[in-house]
Amino acid sequence: MRVLGVDPGLTRCGVGVVDGVPGRPLRMAGVGVVRTPADADIGHRLVLIERGIEAWLDEYAPQAVAVERVFSQHNVRTVMGTAQASAVAMLCASRRGLPVHLHTPSEVKAAVTGSGRADKAQVGAMVTRLLRLDAPPKPADAADALALAICHIWRGTATNRLQQAVARVRTQEPST
Amino acid sequence: MRVLGVDPGLTRCGVGVVDGVPGRPLRMAGVGVVRTPADADIGHRLVLIERGIEAWLDEYAPQAVAVERVFSQHNVRTVMGTAQASAVAMLCASRRGLPVHLHTPSEVKAAVTGSGRADKAQVGAMVTRLLRLDAPPKPADAADALALAICHIWRGTATNRLQQAVARVRTQEPST
Repeated sequence: MRVLGVDPGLTRCGVGVVDGVPGRPLRMAGVGVVRTPADADIGHRLVLIERGIEAWLDEYAPQAVAVERVFSQHNVRTVMGTAQASAVAMLCASRRGLPVHLHTPSEVKAAVTGSGRADKAQVGAMVTRLLRLDAPPKPADAADALALAICHIWRGTATNRLQQAVARVRTQEPST
Repeated sequence: MRVLGVDPGLTRCGVGVVDGVPGRPLRMAGVGVVRTPADADIGHRLVLIERGIEAWLDEYAPQAVAVERVFSQHNVRTVMGTAQASAVAMLCASRRGLPVHLHTPSEVKAAVTGSGRADKAQVGAMVTRLLRLDAPPKPADAADALALAICHIWRGTATNRLQQAVARVRTQEPST
């Protein structure tokens, strides 16, 4: 399964592509950042983010897109821009019929480090280890995007198994 | 000048098109609402908003788009959806090279009623009067979209005049 993780932001949008299934070593297919100039007007910045995300979708053809869930109680000054950048990422994915999944920062941290309160350095260290990289990806937005993709591969499959189990019980089908 | 006003929202996105210049009677070219089902996933809802806004831009070919500026301190439960819907509207306009302008709710209310603290009914009544309609447009999101377009026609021109005046002073060109 190939997943594109997106850590949304107006100035820096982290993007990372991970291939994998639970229980097997993961592989990084690509990582980077979509940047927009802070002095450009908001509409133009959103167009640049759209072009950037589209280029990543074209090049890597992921089967799913994982985007960080934005909370309004976070940093109030930047939250609107984050929400707007995440909207563009979700729009690009859904327009292609790709499933979009949102994961909270705590879910992502817990998935890759075991603790929902891990700091940036810990997340970067675990992403480096799990993907067998030589050094932590920089900037942090790029590492966070990879962490989102990893979280999705692990959680998504767990969720699917749970859904399948629930469906089995509901249809009275014997468990295999 | 033809302006498309957009009152952004995930469930209801008000849209209104107004033709006019300051000092002349205004004319409503069209008004409506782009709706998305509350039970659809967020990515699909953003795709539906994109299609809706694109259809309005195709049909009415406005020269500018005015979008309500979203504040994070507003209703926290709905502000993320509003920010995301506004991002799609700004993206659609900027992608076509149309200028996008943001106006705060107070600016819009002050422009059409004279008071930044006017209520919905007052805004609806003034929109009805200014556009010489038989009844206030419904729902309120549609009336708000028209108010945004009116605000933009009046404020935008004032801003342009100010910019022209500043430019004249700077270039030492005699005022006419």
